Amino acid sequence: MHSIEELQAIVKGTFEKESFSAEPASLYEPISYTLGAGGKRIRPLLVLIGCDLFNGDPGQAKPALLAIELFHNFTLLHDDIMDQAQLRRGRETVFKKWNTSVAILSGDTMFAMACEYLSSVPKEVLPSALTLFTQTARRVCEGQQYDMDFEARKDVSITEYLEMIRLKTAVLLGCSLKLGALVAKAPDAEAEKARSFGENIGMAFQLQDDLLDVFGDEKKFGKETGGDILAGKKTFLLLKAYELAGSKEKEELDACFSDKLMPAGEKIARVKKVYESLGIREITQSAIETYFSAALKSCESIRADEAGKNVLRALANELLKRDF
Amino acid sequence: MHSIEELQAIVKGTFEKESFSAEPASLYEPISYTLGAGGKRIRPLLVLIGCDLFNGDPGQAKPALLAIELFHNFTLLHDDIMDQAQLRRGRETVFKKWNTSVAILSGDTMFAMACEYLSSVPKEVLPSALTLFTQTARRVCEGQQYDMDFEARKDVSITEYLEMIRLKTAVLLGCSLKLGALVAKAPDAEAEKARSFGENIGMAFQLQDDLLDVFGDEKKFGKETGGDILAGKKTFLLLKAYELAGSKEKEELDACFSDKLMPAGEKIARVKKVYESLGIREITQSAIETYFSAALKSCESIRADEAGKNVLRALANELLKRDF
Repeated sequence: MHSIEELQAIVKGTFEKESFSAEPASLYEPISYTLGAGGKRIRPLLVLIGCDLFNGDPGQAKPALLAIELFHNFTLLHDDIMDQAQLRRGRETVFKKWNTSVAILSGDTMFAMACEYLSSVPKEVLPSALTLFTQTARRVCEGQQYDMDFEARKDVSITEYLEMIRLKTAVLLGCSLKLGALVAKAPDAEAEKARSFGENIGMAFQLQDDLLDVFGDEKKFGKETGGDILAGKKTFLLLKAYELAGSKEKEELDACFSDKLMPAGEKIARVKKVYESLGIREITQSAIETYFSAALKSCESIRADEAGKNVLRALANELLKRDF
Repeated sequence: MHSIEELQAIVKGTFEKESFSAEPASLYEPISYTLGAGGKRIRPLLVLIGCDLFNGDPGQAKPALLAIELFHNFTLLHDDIMDQAQLRRGRETVFKKWNTSVAILSGDTMFAMACEYLSSVPKEVLPSALTLFTQTARRVCEGQQYDMDFEARKDVSITEYLEMIRLKTAVLLGCSLKLGALVAKAPDAEAEKARSFGENIGMAFQLQDDLLDVFGDEKKFGKETGGDILAGKKTFLLLKAYELAGSKEKEELDACFSDKLMPAGEKIARVKKVYESLGIREITQSAIETYFSAALKSCESIRADEAGKNVLRALANELLKRDF
């Protein structure tokens, strides 16, 4: 059993030791640049936590944690092209710093490297690990496609939205934990509970992201609020508001989102007021708590040492403690 | 042992039976569209030939042949974006018919599906099959990057060019044969000989493509010649010509490639004349024969039934018989 700090140190050490440089430099420099930017490395940590929970050897989980993090960063590279995002982790995105072709091909290479790392997990684990990993990869792509499709649609339901964030974000967190559990040779039923914990935490985390973007404490959250409102992004909050709105609130929301000249401050204030009048904040908080409870319930049911389960609980609290 | 026609029928049947439709349709329609266009399906055939050569069960090779063809088509989708190609197999390319985001994401999904198929090869074969497949995938990306890098460079050497086509094209043909051999549980040394055969045939095939684009019989070749010259593409012929050119020939080539207003017919004729004066046609033919002979030598050395090796030989002749 390791503490969460010890596992974090293993993740850090693994990435510090690993070199991502190779020829041609034009292909691999963007990969080193991307992986060098760090990020929170939550997914590789989850792999180690899943492995440790079932008394696995963290050393054996290294190929899987590298695979997960490379895969995740590959999706970011490609998503940034599709979203035309200029910044990522405070630095220029790859497609902006280089170009679209480089971002496509460096991303593809990272995906190939991810699968290459995975081929080094213990032989007896490989079939189930690879099936899990590739099915998850496919779901993440599906989630990104739904996300893009939804931009052009006016009738997205809450159910559809939840399924989209499940595919785009939550399944990979669940996959990370389960992959670690598989490496530790946990029985499939137990590994599945770990996966369910991760997926539910992922759902709660994503909904909290939506909530904080509107109601977060700017000082603690570390970024300005209201970005989603200004971008007209179809978040849980907006979809729920439209679902519950009477004709008056609908009119007000339509007025805010159709008026391209409305000052930013006014738009944010007016939409927030509609959210407050409809109780959107509390509804979202309650949805987050539902997923959070489901995660803890999965955690309870896992047959493992309490010490390991406490790491899961600590992680859940850590990820969701961000203040309002 | 199966005849090449029987193996072709298995490939055909496998793709006819397999459905690539799923939700969201916006993600999977381009995949069905791409795979429905057919193509020669040489790589999946090579998987079956590699398997049959070592008395493997073609049924067991189906996941591997699907993996290889999906991977190949994924690279085409992404290459077409990078090259801004409008047509593929006589139809609009995916990025043209839909858009760049769809082509990126459908491509990514095909790569994920390819690895997912591969996870179903016999368990004991999976570690080596996955390592081979992912390392090859990475090399194909490297080859594409070199190809793009070369467009902007004036000093590409023949050695660099040959390495580029090896990575971009030939390694995947070798990988296909070896993957089939691995599924048939061939000893690694024998599987490696099959890979070497495929890689050398791939080199010969690519050089022949360069040659036919200039000196091919338009009626038999089925497309107009001179395309590479008009596009200023750095082919084996052009690089060799610059390598051997005296100052007079260099001047003539420079004149042809710098004059944007020169009529197409004149440009082709003048460059061809330089090629002929330098013996480029014969030099290229000799390079093709060198690779062809190396392939046949690999074939000779394989410990397998003559019937199976005759299929390899027949394939080599089939691929390279295209008339001049």
